This record gives sequence, structure tokens and C-alpha cells, in this order.
Amino acid sequence: MKHFLKETDFTQNEAAEVLALARDLKQERGRNTPAVLKHQTWAMIFSKSSTRTRVSFEVGIHELGGNPLFLNKNDIQLGRGESIGDTARVLSRMVHGLIVRTYDHAEVEQLAELGNVPVINALTDFLHPCQIYADAFTLAERWTPPGGDLLASLKGRKIAFLGDTACNMANSWILGANLFGMEISLAGPKGFEPSAEFNTLLAAESKRLGLPGKYQFTTDPYEAVKNADVVYTDVWVSMGKEDEAAERIKTMSPYSVTAQLFAAAKPDAWFMHCLPAYVGKEVTQDVLDHPRSIIFDEAENRLHAQKAIMAVLAQQPRG
Amino acid sequence: MKHFLKETDFTQNEAAEVLALARDLKQERGRNTPAVLKHQTWAMIFSKSSTRTRVSFEVGIHELGGNPLFLNKNDIQLGRGESIGDTARVLSRMVHGLIVRTYDHAEVEQLAELGNVPVINALTDFLHPCQIYADAFTLAERWTPPGGDLLASLKGRKIAFLGDTACNMANSWILGANLFGMEISLAGPKGFEPSAEFNTLLAAESKRLGLPGKYQFTTDPYEAVKNADVVYTDVWVSMGKEDEAAERIKTMSPYSVTAQLFAAAKPDAWFMHCLPAYVGKEVTQDVLDHPRSIIFDEAENRLHAQKAIMAVLAQQPRG
Amino acid sequence: MKHFLKETDFTQNEAAEVLALARDLKQERGRNTPAVLKHQTWAMIFSKSSTRTRVSFEVGIHELGGNPLFLNKNDIQLGRGESIGDTARVLSRMVHGLIVRTYDHAEVEQLAELGNVPVINALTDFLHPCQIYADAFTLAERWTPPGGDLLASLKGRKIAFLGDTACNMANSWILGANLFGMEISLAGPKGFEPSAEFNTLLAAESKRLGLPGKYQFTTDPYEAVKNADVVYTDVWVSMGKEDEAAERIKTMSPYSVTAQLFAAAKPDAWFMHCLPAYVGKEVTQDVLDHPRSIIFDEAENRLHAQKAIMAVLAQQPRG
Repeated sequence: MKHFLKETDFTQNEAAEVLALARDLKQERGRNTPAVLKHQTWAMIFSKSSTRTRVSFEVGIHELGGNPLFLNKNDIQLGRGESIGDTARVLSRMVHGLIVRTYDHAEVEQLAELGNVPVINALTDFLHPCQIYADAFTLAERWTPPGGDLLASLKGRKIAFLGDTACNMANSWILGANLFGMEISLAGPKGFEPSAEFNTLLAAESKRLGLPGKYQFTTDPYEAVKNADVVYTDVWVSMGKEDEAAERIKTMSPYSVTAQLFAAAKPDAWFMHCLPAYVGKEVTQDVLDHPRSIIFDEAENRLHAQKAIMAVLAQQPRG
Repeated sequence: MKHFLKETDFTQNEAAEVLALARDLKQERGRNTPAVLKHQTWAMIFSKSSTRTRVSFEVGIHELGGNPLFLNKNDIQLGRGESIGDTARVLSRMVHGLIVRTYDHAEVEQLAELGNVPVINALTDFLHPCQIYADAFTLAERWTPPGGDLLASLKGRKIAFLGDTACNMANSWILGANLFGMEISLAGPKGFEPSAEFNTLLAAESKRLGLPGKYQFTTDPYEAVKNADVVYTDVWVSMGKEDEAAERIKTMSPYSVTAQLFAAAKPDAWFMHCLPAYVGKEVTQDVLDHPRSIIFDEAENRLHAQKAIMAVLAQQPRG
Repeated sequence: MKHFLKETDFTQNEAAEVLALARDLKQERGRNTPAVLKHQTWAMIFSKSSTRTRVSFEVGIHELGGNPLFLNKNDIQLGRGESIGDTARVLSRMVHGLIVRTYDHAEVEQLAELGNVPVINALTDFLHPCQIYADAFTLAERWTPPGGDLLASLKGRKIAFLGDTACNMANSWILGANLFGMEISLAGPKGFEPSAEFNTLLAAESKRLGLPGKYQFTTDPYEAVKNADVVYTDVWVSMGKEDEAAERIKTMSPYSVTAQLFAAAKPDAWFMHCLPAYVGKEVTQDVLDHPRSIIFDEAENRLHAQKAIMAVLAQQPRG
């Protein structure tokens, strides 16, 4: 049973297939979408509120012919009233896939291990692979001529990730960049290097798939954005970190993506942000509104990329 | 892009079309409903709990072949974690229509202006146009011979609106009566006249569409119901006004629709109330149960009228 | 209008039909399911959170071609902001069936009496008939040769119900056992005999349908399980009883289903539990994991049995 818990749960060939399918699904939206989820219900178990993630999955499941079933994690008492194993076993008998947005990455791993249906990681404290595939598709769309090889267009490109370089988005982009053949440079405060836990995963996955397993970390934002094709940032104070807000804002302020910093990247670099953005913190309004800001394309492409991911998982042979 | 934020967002011709379509959709319910929302998801963003509004829209969207996506306004942090503009832009990329029930009328206007999909006002503090179209259809059904012109049957009729004459339902019925060619007389306490803000809107819309732009306001309930074809009332203490409850109940008690007051209207007048009713306050039980009380038809017709409104909006050419 | 509020709302013939239909629906799942709920919305009004009940109904409605509409009971203010009668009348105009999970059994009875659409009891403090039909189907599946008569396989079998013998599950299994031709023996603490209210219902229903109307009650768990084909238990401290927890656990501990107690039943007896289980309380881990524990089949069969129940109710002639 194939799951999608991290970027490298797909090989490079499979990633290329996902990107190509996302392009097809986007082009034919509203017309000839194959009903690959016909007769299926996919449960969405969410512990955090979310506009983009929830809407993109509910819309995507419906457009693939399936039935989205949204469950608040508290309502179903996952891991409290009932063990994760029992929940996985029971839901596996009834639904055809699980989409899980939670804090603890181990929970999605357990649901995948103990259940019998595909599990998609829709955000954990550790990784956010759906966003990375949507982002990669967004870039490849712009870098690929019509009908061209989307994955190939990413090869050798450089992405600069600024600010909270110890967060799930940073982790996920490191894994993704390695898988997609990109170079990645992170710039954040001392002490915000990717964790030992993440480095262990990166090493293991790189060995397994023959990837370089590399990233650069610097405390100098200008070093990171130099020659970058993409400048990426995320909120500094994500949900659950509100009590550290003042300290984090102070520490990370040198990494704010201003027009000046963005101008130090390549002249045709794209600005990306997975939203919602806190204006004047990790990014300024002029960069958000910049002609090379593609933040709303990123948001939209969550829909198309996730439809592709679900379609690939749904069509695997069942045991 | 056409929206439905107020009664007069449809011209008289379009209103006639909506009423005729509501009749067709009601007659053929469960049989030949055209799937005009096929492949579509319409998001419902609600800040107030509601049985009738929520159920009628979810059922209606499904019956038109679409996918209803219910979102609690707090969950998506509309206007707080993310600006209304960004939310409008993101949702416009994913869903095909927005149905919004909120307090501040400016929010639905901003969603309509900044997004790129049809927006339906499912209740604001200022207007409740879906209810008015359902009510108008309910009356026209009774006043029109089979196959007759529904809108024409409303022309020259008089509606009396009693009680809280400064509320959204009063505003909406004034706009609706002007559009449908009806006469409207409101009876409520001094100080509860329609607001200057509403009068400005009424004047502007009347000028734009060539409507009379008139209503009567009186503090005498018997004057209002005299010669009335319809006696209408609404709750005195709507959601958010609970702290003024005792004062409002005292002030409005002369406008309670009793059997005696109802008898002072035309002998074939209908009683209407958009529910839920507070028995013994704005209306007595004998009037609610009166043979000429059509409150449950009104409730049901929310479904048919809203299906017609969605169908008309969904079929407009996209930019 | 036929409803499903208690086991005996179906006659033995109808129960046989439900079981046979559940078998068909299970076998053909994902392939040829007849869309008996096409164009229909069934509303689910729930006052308790629930994984199994909610998921099984939402999935089942979708698989029968219908639209599940989940409503939190608090959101629609059932019985508070609006009378149950008015809610029943309004919903009957819009939806095609009601599935209600609440505390007070009288509420489901009122919704059934005052509305005009089929009502299904998805759990009350008094009865839980959907679980009993799922359980009966789970047993009959194991006791019936391919194509055989499922109901007939239950005849003469003995079920032992242990622990909280005054709960809704005990009540429901007594009614079910009488309907299905089974013998039932309950073992629980003195004072936990089935209530006078339940005995009155049992007597009335048994007279109406010509059933024996019998059960055994004992305080000796070994007496109950002797010769039993099924050993059944449920949580000792259900939702709403948390303040009595310590007292109940102490009183009921002799009725914990241990491997030793389970071994005192027939050598081919099945262990059942409607989940979630509290390990070390009403049942030990070794019994939950026993080769003759069929708890996950029970959970899955909620889906198939409830689909059969809905299909039967949906296909009755409308008045």
C-alpha cells in the first residue's frame, strides 16, 4: 500500500507522473475529469483549521467523483478515546483513503502502518509534502514549454528559503529539492538549522533513492538568495507557537523578504509563500504584490497537485 | 460577474425568470432537475448557525448536481487571519460560487468585488434577499393560475410588515416590494424607522431601475394591516440583540400579530413569518396555526427559490 | 410512514429482508450498488460525537447515491430555539430522511410522529437498533452457508450480555434476540436489571408481534456465558456517566470478559463489542485480540446493515 507522507514517497519517475497528471487535470478541469474516486469516500481528519487545505481537498475529491468526509480530529477523539490503531482499522473498513492534518508526524505514520487504505499527509509539524508538490508544479508550469517535461524544468534550479528554517516547510522543501534535482539554500537565525531528526530522515531517504542529500544553511540572507530562481518564505509564528511570537519576530527580522532582498535574487526569480502571509513580517506588501509573486497560483495548484496525488494513490493495486 | 447581494441585483425581468424557474424546479423536484452545477463546488461561509438556510442551500446545491462545502466562518478566519481580499482570491480559484451568511453587509460586497465567482447573500444585518424571493414565490404560487405569470400576480398587492421595522427583513421587503410592484406599509415603534443608510440604498436602486422607491411607515399596526394582502412579522430579538431583549419586547408588544390584528387585514390575507417564531411575542399561536398561515410553505420555498437563483447565476457567461 | 426507532419496527420477515440486502450490498460494494437515494439528501442530526456512526452513515448514504448532510444538534438548536415539531415539519419539506443520534428517546419518537420522512434512531439512551442489526448480520454471516437464510441461522442461538445490563445496548439486544429467535442471558450487578420502562416496551412489542418477550438476568457471569454462542459486552462508563465512573468500575469488575470467562462459553463462541473498548475494564486485551473476536467485522457491518435499512425505508410508498 503506497502512502504520501513525505516528498520521497514518490520516486522521481512517480513525481514526474504526478506533475504531468496535475497539468492534465488543470487543463481539463470541469470537462473530462476521470471519476477515479467513483463510489469512494475519502475521510479528512483535521486538527487545525485551514482554508486552503480543506477547500482544495474537498473540491478535489468531488471533482474526481468521490465523497469528501470532513472530520474534526477532536470529534473523533483520535488517539484519546480510541487508539490510533483501532481507528485506522475501523476507518479502513469504511473509507477509501485518509487525509490527515495534525501536529505529530508519528500519527500519520501509524495510521498508514496500521490501516489498509492510502494515507495523505496534509500537514504535520515535521513535513508538508502536498504544498511542495503544488509549489513544484507551479514553478514547472512557468519553466516548461507546452507539452514539455515538467520535472526536467526544475533540474539545476536554485531555491532560497528564508526565515524559519527549522519549520516543516523548510524540511519539506529540502526533501523536495533533493528529489526534483534542485539546489536549496536556507537562510535563518543561528539555532534554526534543520533538526537532527530531519537530517537523519534526509540521509536515509537520499541513500534509499540515490539523491544527493544536500542543502546549504547560512545566517546571511543575501548569500542564500544569490543566483536563486525562487525566493520562498513562510510565517514566522505558526499555529501553536504564539507564545514565542515577540522573540521569533525579533530574531527573524533580518530574513524578511523585502523588495531589496528579492532584487538580489536572479532577475527572473519568482517569489512564493504558502499563505496566509503576515505583511511586514516575513514579507513586505510590495513583494506580495510584485509581478513575479505567484502566491495565488501556488494556492490554486494545491487543488490540481492533490488531485493528481489522490488519483495516483487510488489507482494502485489493492492487497 | 452577476451576484445576488440584494433584491434589486435582478431586474424585474430577471426576477420574473427566477420565480418561473423556482416553479419549474419545484414541480420537477426529484425527477428531471438539470445538473447546472455539475462538476461544481459552492462554498457556504456561515457565521451564524441556521437550520433553514443551511439545509436549503446544501440540499439545493446537491439537487442541481453540485457539491456543497460548508465552512464555519470562524474556521476559515475570514477577515482576521487572512484578509477578505486574499480569501476571495484563493476561493475563486477553487470553488464556483460563494454563499455567505454574516453580520456585516460590507463583507459580502467585498467578497463579490474582489473574487471572481458569484456571491449570494444568505443573510446580513442589512438585507436577506433569499428570504424575500422565497416569500414572493410563496405568494405568487397562491395568486397565479396554473402556467400564469407569477410576477404579475404580485403587482398592486399590499404587504404589512409589523414589529421590528428597522431590521434586515424590513429593509429587504421594502426593496422587494418596490421591485415586484407591491405596496408596503410598516408598523413599528417610533425610532424603528428604516435607517438613513437603507433609504440611501433604496433611492439609488430605485433611480437605477426606475422603481417608485416608496414605503409607508406608521406607529399604528391597524393602519398598516388595513387592506393588506399579506401580514408579515419577524422575531423582535434577533441573534446578537439578546441584551436588549426586555426593552425591545416591551416596546414592540403593540405590534404582536394577534388573531384580532390579523382579522383587520383583507379577509383572504396570508400570514407569513420567516421562522423561528417566538410564540406569544411577535405572533400568537392561533395565528401561526391559522388556515391562512403559510409559514411552512415559506420555509420549503427557500429551497426552490434559492435553486433558481443559483441556476441563474451559474449560467451567466464567465469573463 | 415506516421508521426505524427500535428493533421491532421491522417484523421478522422485514428483518430477514434487511439482512439479505445487507449481504448483497456488502458483496457488490463499489460495483453495482443501486442508487436508491438518488436526488435525495438525508440529514444526520447528532448530539454526541461518534466515529463509527457518523462515518458509516455518511459513507452509506453516498454509496446509495444520496447526499449526507451532517448537522450538529447544537447548531440547529433542536428542541430549544425551535420546537421539535417545527423542526420536523421544516426538515420534512427539504430532506428525504432523518438520522438522529441523541440522548432522549422521546425526541426521535417526536421527530418521527411530527415529520413526514423516515427517521432512523442512530443511538439514544434507551435503544441502539442499528448496532443490533449490524451485530446480527455479523453473526449470521458466519453461521450461514453461501446463499443460505441469514435470519434462520440465528434461531435458537444464545447470546450472553455482560456488565452494564441496564444500558441501551442491553435493552436493544433483548428486543433483537426476541425478534431474531435467540435466547439472551444478561449478567450484571444487582440493581442493573433492565428498567420497568424497557420491560413495558418489551411486553407491548412482544404481544404485538407474537414474540416470547423473554430474557434471563443473573448476577453470575458464568451462569450467563454457559452454552453461549456469543459473548457480548459494552463500555461500563458511557458518555454522560463519567461522574459515576469509579463506583461503576468497582461494581462491574466481576463481569469483565477475561479469557477465563470467555472460555466458559461454547468452544466456538464469538466475542463481540460495539467499540470503543476500555482495555482491562469490561474486556481484556487477549479477548479483544482472540481469533474468535469479531469486533472489526461488527464495526464494518454497521455500514452494510445501515445501507440495507435506509434502502428499505427509502423504497416504501410515500403518502
